[in-house]
Formats: sequence, C-alpha cells, structure tokens
Amino acid sequence: MTYRAPVADIAFTLRHGGGLGTGLGTGLAPAQGGLGPEDIDAVLQEAGRLANDVIAPLNAVGDRTGAVFKDGIVTTPPGWKEAYRAWTAGGWNAVSLPPEWGGQGLPHALNAACIEMWNSAAMAFGIGPVLTIGAAETLAVYGSDDLKRTYLPKLVSGEWTGTMQLTEPQAGTDVGALRSKAERAGDGTYRITGQKIFITYGEHDLTDNIIHFVLARLSDAPPGNRGISLFLVPKFLVNADGSLGARNDARAHSVEHKLGIHASPTCTMVYGDNGGATAYLVGEENRGLAHMFTMMNLARLSVGLQGVGIAERATQQAMQYAHERKQGRALGVTSGSSAIIEHPDVKRMLMTMRSLTRAARAICYATAGAIDGSHGKGDAAKAADNRAALLTPVAKAFSTDIGIEVASLGIQVHGGMGFIEETGAAQHLRDARIAAIYEGTNGIQAIDLVMRKLPLDGGAVVRAYLDELRAIVQAVQATNDPAFGRTGARLAEAVDNLERATAWLLERIESEPQSALAGATPYLRLFGAAAGGCLLAHEALAAKQTGDGEPASRIAIARFFAENIAVQAQGLERTVTEGADSVNTADAVLTD
Amino acid sequence: MTYRAPVADIAFTLRHGGGLGTGLGTGLAPAQGGLGPEDIDAVLQEAGRLANDVIAPLNAVGDRTGAVFKDGIVTTPPGWKEAYRAWTAGGWNAVSLPPEWGGQGLPHALNAACIEMWNSAAMAFGIGPVLTIGAAETLAVYGSDDLKRTYLPKLVSGEWTGTMQLTEPQAGTDVGALRSKAERAGDGTYRITGQKIFITYGEHDLTDNIIHFVLARLSDAPPGNRGISLFLVPKFLVNADGSLGARNDARAHSVEHKLGIHASPTCTMVYGDNGGATAYLVGEENRGLAHMFTMMNLARLSVGLQGVGIAERATQQAMQYAHERKQGRALGVTSGSSAIIEHPDVKRMLMTMRSLTRAARAICYATAGAIDGSHGKGDAAKAADNRAALLTPVAKAFSTDIGIEVASLGIQVHGGMGFIEETGAAQHLRDARIAAIYEGTNGIQAIDLVMRKLPLDGGAVVRAYLDELRAIVQAVQATNDPAFGRTGARLAEAVDNLERATAWLLERIESEPQSALAGATPYLRLFGAAAGGCLLAHEALAAKQTGDGEPASRIAIARFFAENIAVQAQGLERTVTEGADSVNTADAVLTD
Repeated sequence: MTYRAPVADIAFTLRHGGGLGTGLGTGLAPAQGGLGPEDIDAVLQEAGRLANDVIAPLNAVGDRTGAVFKDGIVTTPPGWKEAYRAWTAGGWNAVSLPPEWGGQGLPHALNAACIEMWNSAAMAFGIGPVLTIGAAETLAVYGSDDLKRTYLPKLVSGEWTGTMQLTEPQAGTDVGALRSKAERAGDGTYRITGQKIFITYGEHDLTDNIIHFVLARLSDAPPGNRGISLFLVPKFLVNADGSLGARNDARAHSVEHKLGIHASPTCTMVYGDNGGATAYLVGEENRGLAHMFTMMNLARLSVGLQGVGIAERATQQAMQYAHERKQGRALGVTSGSSAIIEHPDVKRMLMTMRSLTRAARAICYATAGAIDGSHGKGDAAKAADNRAALLTPVAKAFSTDIGIEVASLGIQVHGGMGFIEETGAAQHLRDARIAAIYEGTNGIQAIDLVMRKLPLDGGAVVRAYLDELRAIVQAVQATNDPAFGRTGARLAEAVDNLERATAWLLERIESEPQSALAGATPYLRLFGAAAGGCLLAHEALAAKQTGDGEPASRIAIARFFAENIAVQAQGLERTVTEGADSVNTADAVLTD
Repeated sequence: MTYRAPVADIAFTLRHGGGLGTGLGTGLAPAQGGLGPEDIDAVLQEAGRLANDVIAPLNAVGDRTGAVFKDGIVTTPPGWKEAYRAWTAGGWNAVSLPPEWGGQGLPHALNAACIEMWNSAAMAFGIGPVLTIGAAETLAVYGSDDLKRTYLPKLVSGEWTGTMQLTEPQAGTDVGALRSKAERAGDGTYRITGQKIFITYGEHDLTDNIIHFVLARLSDAPPGNRGISLFLVPKFLVNADGSLGARNDARAHSVEHKLGIHASPTCTMVYGDNGGATAYLVGEENRGLAHMFTMMNLARLSVGLQGVGIAERATQQAMQYAHERKQGRALGVTSGSSAIIEHPDVKRMLMTMRSLTRAARAICYATAGAIDGSHGKGDAAKAADNRAALLTPVAKAFSTDIGIEVASLGIQVHGGMGFIEETGAAQHLRDARIAAIYEGTNGIQAIDLVMRKLPLDGGAVVRAYLDELRAIVQAVQATNDPAFGRTGARLAEAVDNLERATAWLLERIESEPQSALAGATPYLRLFGAAAGGCLLAHEALAAKQTGDGEPASRIAIARFFAENIAVQAQGLERTVTEGADSVNTADAVLTD
C-alpha cells in the first residue's frame, strides 16, 4: 500500500504540538534558519514527495531481498542505490547540518519531521542517514580542522556515509566493557584492532567510502568508561587531494539474519587482520564516550522518530484496509455488508493507533524543538538543554514502544490477511521491533530518565515541565466545549499521577535506588501517557482557536487519548510506587 | 534453547488453579476418567518427555525450512513426519476422545495441559492436532453411524488428520457470507465446488489421508447463517473395506507465505475442478454452522493454550538468557559484572512474563475443567456448561494477547541478540501473532463475551463467577502473611472494577449496543486481569496450605500480578464505561 506523507499534520504539530511555554518547543525560533511558514511548508512538501514517490516503493522489495553479503561485499536491494542518490542530491542529508560545511543549518525540529517521513517510507533506508548525520555532528564538534576538512563536507552531503561503532559481544549496554585496541602509530595516527558487532550499514554499496566512528581503548588507558577513545576509521584512506587511497585494514565479516529491517546491513566488523586499521583520534584521548554521547542523543531521538514513522505507516495501511474490507453488518445498517471501519471494535483499534502515533509525534517534535532551543546562550538555552535531556529518553522509548503496539494492532485490523507477508502489515511489526532495543534499550532509557534526568537541577527541570502540563490541563478545563468530553478531568488526574510518582521517585533515587530502578519502566510509560495526552489536548485547543489543523478531528483524538489511554496513569502510578516491593522480592521466582 | 515442560507447575495448576467453587474447575472429577494424582502425574510426565525430546527440537528447523509446496504437494520439514508418528503412536491424539472409538476418554483439562506442551514445543506442530481433535469431536456428536465407523477410528488415532474449512475470501469473520456450493448427487452423497482459504494443514505429507470438514451452501438453502451445511470431504475416497480409493476432486492450490508458524501449511483449497468433490453430510442440512460450533469452541480454548504455550517457552528462554548474560554491575555488587537477571528492570520484565503466563494458564485450565464438568446432567452440569461458555472467549483472547506481549518482552530481555533470528526469541513473537487472529479474532471473542455471554441466565452466570472471585479475595485478605503484600487490597479493587464494568455493560447490551460493543475489548482485558489475579492468589493460598507447588514462588507471582498488572483494572473500567463515547464520536478522525 502507498504511503502518503501526512504533511499537513506534521506541519501543524511542528507549529503547535511542541509549543509549550516560551516557544521552546516550536523548534522554529527565528534565530534558527529564520524560515517563514511558507518555507517550512515547502520543505515538508518536497520531503513528503520524495518519501512517497521514491523511497516508499522500496520498502517491500527491501524486505524481500534484503542486503546480501558475499565475499565481504554487501549489495543493497534493487533500486536502493538510485534512491539514495536522489535523496542526497536533494540535499536531505544536510538539512540540519552546519552551513560552514555545506549543510543547510535548518532547525532540528524540521529535520525531525523529515526523518519521520524517511522512516515511514522505509525504515531500513532511514536508519542509515540517522547515523551519518550523528557522525557529522560529532565530527563538527570534536574533530580537528584537518579531519573536518577531509571528511566533513562529504559526510554532510551524504557522498560518504558514517557508522557508529560501540558494541562488542561482551559490551552491549555496558559500553565500558569494550576491548577493541588502539595503538599510537607514532605519526599522530593510530592502529585499531578488534571486533565490533551489530554495526548498521557497516558495509554497503551506496557510496564509495564509509567513515567508521569507532570506540577503542589505548593500552595505557584506565579501565572502564574513562579509558575509551573515539576514532575515525575510513574504509578507504583519503589522499591529500581528497581522492580515495588504499583500502584500510577494516572489513565486514558477516551480516546478521534479522527479524526485520532486512535491507539495513547489520555487520560484524573486523579491524586489524593485517596489523591494524589506520585511525584518527576524534577529540581527546579517553574522552571518547563523552564525545560519542553527542551522537547518541541525537540518534535516540531519531530512533524515537522511527517509532513514530512506522506507527504512522501502519496506521495508514490499516485505515485504508478498514475502509475497503467489507465484513458483517454494522448496527443501524439495514442491508448489505459494512466496511469494517463501521464496527466499534475496529474503530477502537484505529483510534488507538492514530492517537498513540500523534502523541509520540508531538513528544518527539517537542524534544527536537528543545534541542534547537539549546543551541543559543543564556538561561533560555540552558532551560531548553535541560528540557531536551529530560524528554529524549521519553521520545525514544515511548515512541518505539507504541511503534510496536501500533504495528501489532495494524496486523490485527487486517485479520488473517495481516499474517500473510505479502500484505505488508507484518513487516511493520518486524521492522518496529528493533527500535525498542538499539541506541540504548528502552529499559536503559527509563533508567536514564529516572536516575539522571529527574534529579537535574534538584528536580526543578521535571517540575517545570509538570507546571507546563498543568497549564494545558487548565486551558482544556477552561473551554466549555462538550466535544472535549472528559478530556480535562482525565488529563488532570494523569498529571496528578505523574506528579506523585515523580515525587516518590525523587525521594528514593539516593536512598532506595533499587526501588527507583524497579519503577523506571512503568514511570516512563506514565510520563508518555500524561505528556502525550496534554500535547494532543494542546494541539486540539490550537486547532480550535485557529480553525486550522482539522479541529474536529484533533479534538476527537485528544479526547480518545485522554479517556482511553491517559487513564492508564492511575494503574501506572501504583505500579511505580507500590510495585517495586514485588520486583525486589521476586528472587524465589527467578531461580530457573 | 531447550524447552523443559513445566510438569510440576502444570500438575499443580490442574489441581488447584481452576479449583473454584464446587470442584468445577478441577477438571478431574472422578466421573471422568477416575484417575488418581499419580496417574495424572504419569500422563503429564510422559507428555512432557515427548514434548521436550521429540517435538521441541523441530521448532527451529520447522521455522527455517517451512512447509514446502510444489505441484500440489506439501512437504513438511525434516523430522516432522517421524515426530508426528511418534506422537500418534503414543496415543496423544486420543487423550480426551471417546473410548468407544479408540479414545482414552480422559478429562479435557488433562488434554489441555498436553496441548499446552505440544504448542510450547512447536506451535506449528501443535495446531494440526487441535483441528483433528475438534473434527473428531464433531463427527462423534453429529456424524451418521456409517461415517463414524469409516472415519472416526482413524481421526481418533491420528492415522488421518482433520481440517476445518469455513473461510473464503469474502467470508472471514462473517461466515454466513460463504459461497461454496453443495449439490445433492442423488445417491445420498453431495458434490462440492468452491474455494476455501487459510486452511491449516489442508494438505501435507504426515498421513495418507486428510478428512476435510467443509461448510457449503445447498442451492435451495436460505441465505446467511441458516443456509450453511457441514460436509465431510476426504482427500482420498474410502472403499467399503476401509482401504483408500480414488483421489477426490479437492486439491491445495497454494500455500501462504506467513509471518510465523512456517511449518504449518496454510492452504488455499479448490473443490470441483472436475465436477465436484464427493462429500458426505454431517448432521442436518442447513445446520452446519451450529454443528461446527462444537469444533470451534474447543478450538478456541486450544488456541488460548497456544498463547500459554508460546508464553511459557518465551519465558523459559528469556530466563535462561538472563541468568547467563552478564552486563553491568547490579547495585550492591562490588566487583565483576552481574548476570542481567540481577537488574531490577530485567526482573520486572521476567516477572511480567512469568505471571502473565501463569494467569493465562490458570484461566485456560479452569475453562477446560468447566467443559469436563458440563458433560454430565443436572444443575451442576448446566452451571459448568455456562461457566465454560463464559470463560472460553477470555481463555482464547486474554491468553493469546499475553502470548504476543510475553514473546515481545522475551525479545527485549535478549537485547540486540533478540532481533537476530538464530537466537530463536523472534520466532516466538512471529508464531504467537496469529493466535490473536484465527479461530475468531480477539475482537470477536470480546464481542462474544459481552453480547452473548454476559446476558446468559440474565447475568446470573457472570455474577456467580464474580462471587467466586470475591471469595478468593476474602481468603487472601484473611491471611495475615506479609509476603502477600497488598495482594488482597489490589485484587479487591480489581474485582470491584470488573463488577462495575459488568453491571454497566449489562444495562446497555439491549439499549445501547453501540456502547457495549465499543467497550468489549477493554472489558475482556479487565476480566482477564481480575480473574487471572484471583486464580494466581488462589494457587498461592493452596500452595501455602499444602506446602506443595513452591509456596514462596507462587506467593511472589500472585503478589507481583496483583500489584503490577491487576492494578490496570482501574483504567480499564474507565475505558469500558467512559471510553465508548469517544469511540463512537470518532468519525471525524476515520475519514482517510
């Protein structure tokens, strides 16, 4: 089925969905790009067209054919290379990258919208650029002038792609346990030996060079996280004139056979068959993990956007099928059979899909807006930076969790046809499943939220956010529009639930970390339910006020979410504040 | 990873888990089989051994190779045929079938436990017998003596398999829309022409004959559900001496390419290339749908057991991985890295998996026990019959929903390895996904529960069940064992939630069916959460009282479920009683 980029929805959410407080969430502050509404719309329209016409048709063939590995070479599926060229030719890799290196310097929030569309169109396609863009950002911040001059223009344009290499068999979540070695070559360069696993687009045929960003340990480095350095390791060395030189001592050893995103080659990489791969230090020795975090935070938001993207596509497909498929007769209909969308249970599934998708989109765009806001100086930038830090784990984990749920519901709407691979609904679930795992599992995101983000500024960061949510609730309660139903009351309760759970956790992070850790995952879900509900209500209010953005539809979505999904907040608060005991006394069960 | 049938757990749940009220749920009433505890244990041990040693090793190869279709012939994966022979040779097809036709006449509850084990071992294997057993039950009740003599002994032994053929492209959930035709041949037989889709094991090489049970319409039949007849259509006609005769005019046209259960051939069947397949009427003309319901209700419970089976296997695999995989250092540990099972967030995932699996098992076995109880006469049998009718949709839908959730969590526990097909965790999710769809989608189960089962006996059937749940809650509250934590309080609330939601629905089934339909799915989940929580608490109390069944573990599981899962009942009650409005006013959203 054809994907149609929901450009109008996206534009509306960019303008209003993340528009909390002092415009932090808009992502469109005049300082950044200075684009007017028409410019924004034009960019989104163009991106939507490319996603619809060029990338989306590749999704099924990418899944069927997959990336093929033979003799060290990876061949991407038919049409993949041409699509990548069209995509870079349109300047899409460079949207939010620095103008001094060829980027367009547009807001991250705008690029976030584009990233969503690439991933709706084909998630296995969209994940590659996420890493290249992260690599370019990191190099722009930490690279030497020399490295930047040689590599950055081509990473910005997408002429070369970048990879991000942390994981080793014994070092997944625990990055500090990695063992890849770096030795000083004496000429300012380094030699890397070791093995990395799960390297996305570690090898492929889309570009004629691949620039690996590899974490490794110097022999004299301290153990653990503080002994890790970041290196740039090109697949082909680059001559002084910019032409490609010798093949480096780095190769893909194999490609994984995965549940989904078959067209994205997930490689095991081997360094140093012949003495060591030539490598260049990025930033300072032993500070590699900190440098890599720049890359990781952006990548986390992008993975959240993959969740949104796959949820959007699954919803569109289910919606279309539900309009076309006739089965049974709906209540009140007197003859013939009804489209299944007329049946209340199917409506419930579709409304769940759509409202979860919209909530996750709003959270992700608000996060991107906060990142944009953080680039300036002063208190506002600091507040935006903290807001981005707070929301990033929610954007990543909530969005990817609902990506899986929505894709699974999409199969259910299709009935038996959903289980048949040719229908395409099943691919969305298979693809979506990885997003909850990579770039830090969703459990790690929840722990990050609770243990690192809640304590920011002594809890003031999360409290400020709660105040903003509360203000939205009051605005909803102040409208006397019956179309909102119980939206105000249910959201008020959800924010109460979130507030109490937050306070409970803040009291225990130091004194009872085991309890705080046990409640992290349900807390993140509670955060997403309350914040997502408020953001949807905020959008609905904005639509009602402006007459833009299909007010009736937006109000119905906000109401559905508040009355059917945000109400889970009650149980989630209980799980956070009372469930920890039962987790921590569970050892009798966990013996076998 | 190896599956180890949890025989002790299963035996305990058979004895205590479904043991509500007057022994209805035990499934082991002396009238039925008259087995002592040692006999039960011996049967379960043997079944467990076969599941572990013979069937479980086929699961991965079945997934990789799949059922292969060529020139009308289906070849099952290597080892499949031998396993099927060993399984029938052990008499496992015949466990609960009637002794007069070679069956063992043992309780359904005992067979339910076996069905769980076959499906844990390999769901693509387990689904075949489910249909054969259903076909044999139907034939035993509705078949003529002649048909029974010819076909039943071989369907009971498993020498031949049976299929169940309702679905056509335009007639899935809406069976009444089917178009396959039957004509009277004049000699008492019929000729069938038409096409059926999604026919499980419609063609295969496990046995030398396949007996199709096909729904079709006589040319003079009334339209809709009341014009459908049930026919027996053998792949090979059977001669008077029982030997195989001519090939019938019935063939598999193709096999579907599916998300999961690859080894189970899902066939499109074509009847009447050469004038019509020879068919024999089962029961009365135009009463086929009613006759097929016998088959369908048992099949629904069996599909619920598939959910339990896949959840059990996914839990075992995740548990083993979490014990072996080291990553990070748990709180309070001073050196080295910890097994991930030491991390509270991983504990939460594993406890969620285990407690959901146990709750679903208890519900399914209680349903099977009620079916056993229904076979006698008098009030008790009538009550048991009503109980089985009430619980069957919950057993089917709750268990298969949690099958998907548990399998998905199993992937998450494995981190990146979970996404790699060779690990095996992903197969469980792919396999589990169909169980929420076939034998009546879970939406249909929810509608059946609300619209047909709640009104049974004017609501008295569900109220009697609520009383039994309430009695369990009081028993929990009466123990002063602190190990139960807040189990009593949280279950009391959950049963309150269920009771209120039930009353709300009962008031609206007639007057506001649209509202009742919109709340059906969350109501079924609420039912499962409250009933599952109570059954686990009942097991925990029984374990505490008898010292059997690992009391500390069972109490911890009951507590975890009550404090972390049953607490969702609050939000679910809201969704049932308040969410319908937002579903039924959602049309503004559902336009595209």
